Amino acid sequence: MPEQEFDLLIIGGGMAGLTAGIYGARYGLNTAIVEQMMAGAQIINLEKIDNYPGFPQGIAGYELGPATQEQAMNAGVEVLMDTVVGVSTDGDYLLVNGDMGGSYRSKAVIMAAGSSLRSLGIPGEEEFDGRGVSHCATCDGPLYMGQTVAVVGGGDSAADEALTLTEYTERVVLFVRGDALGAQQVLQDRIAAEPKIEVRYNTEVVEILGEDTVSGVKIRSGDGETVEPVSGLFIYVGLDPNSASVADLVPLDNAGHIPVGLNMDTPQPGLYAAGDIRQQSAAQLVASAGDGATAAVAAFRYIRGKDW
Amino acid sequence: MPEQEFDLLIIGGGMAGLTAGIYGARYGLNTAIVEQMMAGAQIINLEKIDNYPGFPQGIAGYELGPATQEQAMNAGVEVLMDTVVGVSTDGDYLLVNGDMGGSYRSKAVIMAAGSSLRSLGIPGEEEFDGRGVSHCATCDGPLYMGQTVAVVGGGDSAADEALTLTEYTERVVLFVRGDALGAQQVLQDRIAAEPKIEVRYNTEVVEILGEDTVSGVKIRSGDGETVEPVSGLFIYVGLDPNSASVADLVPLDNAGHIPVGLNMDTPQPGLYAAGDIRQQSAAQLVASAGDGATAAVAAFRYIRGKDW
Repeated sequence: MPEQEFDLLIIGGGMAGLTAGIYGARYGLNTAIVEQMMAGAQIINLEKIDNYPGFPQGIAGYELGPATQEQAMNAGVEVLMDTVVGVSTDGDYLLVNGDMGGSYRSKAVIMAAGSSLRSLGIPGEEEFDGRGVSHCATCDGPLYMGQTVAVVGGGDSAADEALTLTEYTERVVLFVRGDALGAQQVLQDRIAAEPKIEVRYNTEVVEILGEDTVSGVKIRSGDGETVEPVSGLFIYVGLDPNSASVADLVPLDNAGHIPVGLNMDTPQPGLYAAGDIRQQSAAQLVASAGDGATAAVAAFRYIRGKDW
Repeated sequence: MPEQEFDLLIIGGGMAGLTAGIYGARYGLNTAIVEQMMAGAQIINLEKIDNYPGFPQGIAGYELGPATQEQAMNAGVEVLMDTVVGVSTDGDYLLVNGDMGGSYRSKAVIMAAGSSLRSLGIPGEEEFDGRGVSHCATCDGPLYMGQTVAVVGGGDSAADEALTLTEYTERVVLFVRGDALGAQQVLQDRIAAEPKIEVRYNTEVVEILGEDTVSGVKIRSGDGETVEPVSGLFIYVGLDPNSASVADLVPLDNAGHIPVGLNMDTPQPGLYAAGDIRQQSAAQLVASAGDGATAAVAAFRYIRGKDW
C-alpha cells in the first residue's frame, strides 16, 4: 500500500477528532481522520444528550455524531478506515501505521482516539460477552424486554444507562462499589424517583454465572457472597485511554493519559492530544469538541511556522 | 440591596458562561449567571457560524445564543442583570459586587466575562462612535447600502465582517497592518474571490475624518499618508480580556488574561476562568463552551470536597 501524506492527521473520529477535522480543513490543511469504526461511533450509542450547548431540547447521539461527521466531510476532511497501531517520527514528520499495512505521513498528528470501557476482570466476563454481558443499554436493552438486568458502576454512564434500561426491562439492580453515586445530581434524582431501579451500595460483582447465556451474578458485600438472578449485566466502571500507539513518543501518566499543555500540545513537537485521551479531561462531549478546536488551532500555527 | 448567596456564580453569559451554567445547575448547584447585557449578547452579532460542531448547515449567532440561554434556564440557572466591578474573598467564600450596589456571595466563581473589542486609539474614534464607527457588520451594515466602507484588521473577525458587509455595501476596503491576512484559509479564499473587497496590506489607519458622520479615513503606508473617502469604518483589531475585577486576586498576564490550569482553576481557590478571558484560549466558540463545562466540573468537585 503506498504511503499517504497529509498536513494534519487525526486519530479518532469522535467529537474531539471531528471538531479538529472541521477546523483543520477550514484552515486549508490537507486533513484526514483515521477511525477504526465509523466516525462518531461512540457518540451514536448515547440515547439523549441534554448538556451539549445549543440544543435546548436535547439531541440524540445518533443525530449529533452523524451531523458533526457531515460537517467535517463538507469542510473537506478525508475519513480513512483503519486501526492505528503505532506512531513514530521521521525528521519533522510523524508516521502513523495502521494494522492492515496502511501507512500515513503527516506534518502534525492529533491523538483523539478516546477511551475504551474498562472491564471488571472477573470470571465469566469474556465468556458471556455478547451473550448477556453488554456495554450499551441502547443497543442491547430491547433484548431484555420484561426481564431483570444488573448494571455495575456509580458514575454518570452507569446512572444514565440504568435509566435507559428501565424503558425495556422490568427491573434494574444497580451495583455500586462505594456508599454513594458519583453521578450528577439530576441523574441521581431521576434514579431515586424510578421504582424499577434498586441501588445496592458497597457491593462488588465477583463472578458472572450462566450456561449458554447469563443467568445471574455473584456479589460480595458486608453480608458475604450472594447470588442475584439477572438475565443481563451492563458494565460501566470507568475508561482506559486508547493511547498505546504513542507510548514510545510521550510519557503517559499512570492511567495512560497523554500529557498536554493548555493548547493541547504534547512533549513531542507536532503531536497534540484532544478529548478524554488527555490528562485531566473533563470527559464531556463539549469539552472534547473544544479540545479538538484548540488542538487544530495550535497544529495550524505549528505547521505554518515551519519550513517543510 | 440584600446580599444573595449561591453555590456557583458565573460572571458572563456568552458560550463559556452559559455552558458552565448548564453543567452547574445539572449538578444540583444553586447557580446564577451575572451578565451586563442580555445573556449570549456577543454571540448574537455573529451572522453565520460554520465551525460549531453539530450544525452541518451552519447556525446564526442569533439562534445559537438564545438556544443555549434557554437550555441554561431550563436547567435551572438564574440570570442576573448586573455589571461586576469587583471580586474579593471572605473566608472560603467569594464576594462579587455589581455597579448598582448588588452583592453576591458564592462558594465558587467562574469568570467567563470574555473580551472587549480593542480600539485603535486614534483621533475621531470616540467622536464618531455610532456615527460611522462600528464594531458590528450585521447590526450596522444595512445603514451603508450601496456605499463604500472600510474595515480595519486582518484576523478572522475582520475577514468575516468584511464579507458580511459586501451584502449591503458597494465596496469594502480592508486595511491590514501586516503583509498577510491571519484569517482562516476559507475566509481568505472567499475574500480573494469577492470583487467588492479590496485588500490593502501594510497600511495603518491614523485618523477618522468627517463632520456629522464619517466621510473618510487618513491612512499611512509606504507611500506616506493619503485620505480614503468612506462612509463607515468597522474596527476589528483584537480583543482585551474583561478581567479587571479579579486583578487583585490572581496575577494577570501582560495582555490581561487570567492564568489557569488544565481544569480551568486559577491560583485563587474557588475561582475558575473559562473562554477567551483565560490564558492561551483558542478564542473559538466551541473551545469556550468546552472551557465552561470543564470549569463547572472542577467547581462542582471543589464545592463537594469542602465543609461549608
